Amino acid sequence: MPAVPSSRLASAVEASMPLAERLFHDLRERTRDGPGVSREPYTAGEQAAHDLLAQAARALDLEVTVDPYGNLYMTLPGRDRPRPRWIAGSHLDTVPCAGNYDGAAGVVAGITAVAAFRRLGFVPDRDISVMGIRAEEVSSWFGGNHNGHFGCRSALGRLSRDELLSAVNTASGATLAEQMKRAGFDPDAVGRGASYLQAPAIHGYLELHIEQGPVLEERGIPVGVVTGIRGAARARNARCIGEYTHSGAVPHEYRADAVLATAELLHELDAAWARVRAEGGDLVFTVGKLYTDAKLHSLTKVPGETQFTIDFRSQDEALLVSVGALAHRLAEEIGARRRVRFDLGEFNLHQPAMMDAGYRDMLNAGCRELGIAAIDIPSGAGHDAQDFALAGVRAGMIFVRNSHGSHNPEEAMEMRDFMLGTQLLAWKLARE
Amino acid sequence: MPAVPSSRLASAVEASMPLAERLFHDLRERTRDGPGVSREPYTAGEQAAHDLLAQAARALDLEVTVDPYGNLYMTLPGRDRPRPRWIAGSHLDTVPCAGNYDGAAGVVAGITAVAAFRRLGFVPDRDISVMGIRAEEVSSWFGGNHNGHFGCRSALGRLSRDELLSAVNTASGATLAEQMKRAGFDPDAVGRGASYLQAPAIHGYLELHIEQGPVLEERGIPVGVVTGIRGAARARNARCIGEYTHSGAVPHEYRADAVLATAELLHELDAAWARVRAEGGDLVFTVGKLYTDAKLHSLTKVPGETQFTIDFRSQDEALLVSVGALAHRLAEEIGARRRVRFDLGEFNLHQPAMMDAGYRDMLNAGCRELGIAAIDIPSGAGHDAQDFALAGVRAGMIFVRNSHGSHNPEEAMEMRDFMLGTQLLAWKLARE
Repeated sequence: MPAVPSSRLASAVEASMPLAERLFHDLRERTRDGPGVSREPYTAGEQAAHDLLAQAARALDLEVTVDPYGNLYMTLPGRDRPRPRWIAGSHLDTVPCAGNYDGAAGVVAGITAVAAFRRLGFVPDRDISVMGIRAEEVSSWFGGNHNGHFGCRSALGRLSRDELLSAVNTASGATLAEQMKRAGFDPDAVGRGASYLQAPAIHGYLELHIEQGPVLEERGIPVGVVTGIRGAARARNARCIGEYTHSGAVPHEYRADAVLATAELLHELDAAWARVRAEGGDLVFTVGKLYTDAKLHSLTKVPGETQFTIDFRSQDEALLVSVGALAHRLAEEIGARRRVRFDLGEFNLHQPAMMDAGYRDMLNAGCRELGIAAIDIPSGAGHDAQDFALAGVRAGMIFVRNSHGSHNPEEAMEMRDFMLGTQLLAWKLARE
Repeated sequence: MPAVPSSRLASAVEASMPLAERLFHDLRERTRDGPGVSREPYTAGEQAAHDLLAQAARALDLEVTVDPYGNLYMTLPGRDRPRPRWIAGSHLDTVPCAGNYDGAAGVVAGITAVAAFRRLGFVPDRDISVMGIRAEEVSSWFGGNHNGHFGCRSALGRLSRDELLSAVNTASGATLAEQMKRAGFDPDAVGRGASYLQAPAIHGYLELHIEQGPVLEERGIPVGVVTGIRGAARARNARCIGEYTHSGAVPHEYRADAVLATAELLHELDAAWARVRAEGGDLVFTVGKLYTDAKLHSLTKVPGETQFTIDFRSQDEALLVSVGALAHRLAEEIGARRRVRFDLGEFNLHQPAMMDAGYRDMLNAGCRELGIAAIDIPSGAGHDAQDFALAGVRAGMIFVRNSHGSHNPEEAMEMRDFMLGTQLLAWKLARE
């Protein structure tokens, strides 16, 4: 240990880059949709990506299997096969009219790393399964009361039947179960008890993914070692109820102005966010939607209602709970003082998922050994890695610098940065 | 002077109340529209009101004339006819599905006061014209770039042809000029130079009107002496431009959040309003519309844009100018600090119109003499009185307590309160 010197491994990954480039090219060509790509879960777009990857895996003489939910496993057998295996992967589906890299980069990186091992004749201690995951982007295609990430959660036994049946295609009206069945897979296996993937049989999960924010780009760093995936506390249907009255004829003391009350609440929460940042806490705070009622509002009416959303995200679950409670307290106090009533509803809590601390240390050590500039970085967006972590699997994530965010056709990852991230992934897979 | 003792005058007004009640009843019956009434400018609804009032005037043997714009003058000849005359009036049109009193109360009060004079055999020193004004509520029926109040502004020579031609009926698409012509009046006379009403030929203008706010109701006072009609500084199309980004993945320092920037601006303006009130300044501040873009906003996106309106109103024009300038300064400072750009546009300035100070004193003295509880009160809404005042005519206004605001079928004025207001009106008309 290490069985392969780092420099040889890095060179083998570099030599395997034409495979990665061909895969990205073919993925784009096969799933093109206007200026971007579309790989809707359990449709031809997603299947085309699975077919491409499976074909590449067979060319590398990997074992190719598919679970009842359509997740793809491309396995390089290890020296000691009963040992818990590595899984390196990400999802192959996309949002509508997406960029080519969100998801697919992690699967291509896994295949490229394994291709480098083949090139070196390196046989790892344990099986390495590159996993092409289904249906991570469910929320972009399906409405309903569910938490997304259907592919990995099905396999991990962490998807409920209620969620599966609640997901309804916003275009066709089909349930996700129907769409899964039509694609040839088995929705009836969801929530049936035994899961396809058992945590004790997995050594660890590693996922390379493009960064969806601007941090690496802004700081001029190619690679990030993810510290954790932020959870969220969300109010999807917050309201402030005041009273519509004449904007000229009603003096201050008789007003119940929903807009100015909401402005105070948001400004106070903004100030609380600044205090958390000043103390080094991890938090982002977003009010993505805010609107008066288009049917009733007017230049010359005191506004009687606002509707808005709140999205707090943090790696610190206790902090999420406390800012949610603060929002309720402020709403109560401001509402009483301003003669309005806030109805924030219950904050919907999504648990944060921390990446394994030992993995983080090793990935940082790997960067030093390979000469890759890297920083620690939280993930604000959700990833399949969180579901592995929450299932009790040690998990690590590698971010690759990316311009223009993701979920849009302009996302842009440099192949050089992708190669560095893949070298780090291969380095980690080769060491255990 | 006074020619009639106050107590006899008050009794004569009380004795004339059946006329007022019949007029309100007939107005409601003839212009009913669902739960309310509709008297659209230059249509059958408004004409029905004019016909009813003219009929009552003829029964009182008043001189009835109509100007080229359809305004109705019902004149009690005075002892010395060449003297500048009194005008006592208000408008007879309404907003769609309105209450019965906004506007009509002032014309009915004038007729009731004159009926009391007839009952007493009292001949005033000068002519008293009760004026039934057209088209005050133009803004509720006609879009376009104009300042409303078309009836009195036509007669006073204060309506431009551009405004007349800009007003387009939101239902039929007809211009106001076309609608006026179809009703038998002369739009071509608008803006032609000589006005029908000349300020020097008017002794003064008095208008009784229901209060459109809750102040008299809340304080338990039947009558208000209006101090002035607030002007306005308005931003109809204010915007804040930030940048849409991922709500989880983008840290604070890279955000350009339009909602939180707008919340800070509005909260600062709200605080400035509190300071103006604390110093006894006259100001109301309303953000009637505020919204993120329904096509682009999302729970999980940092908001890239807000649109909103600002309506400042005050009797103090200098204050309106200074709060407008403050809004621009704050927008500049907050925008620079928060990486967003505010575009408030130019504030549209509507001049305040102060009621004549001598009239205010006399009306207060009249209340004391008649035993009517009254307070001084600003008018937040616009009235025909402001156009007389801005034309250089001495003007006074009497507010009558009214529940539920106006511009809705629930407006509610007690006949007892109306009688007190009309006694005050008659008292003032009889004294000069």
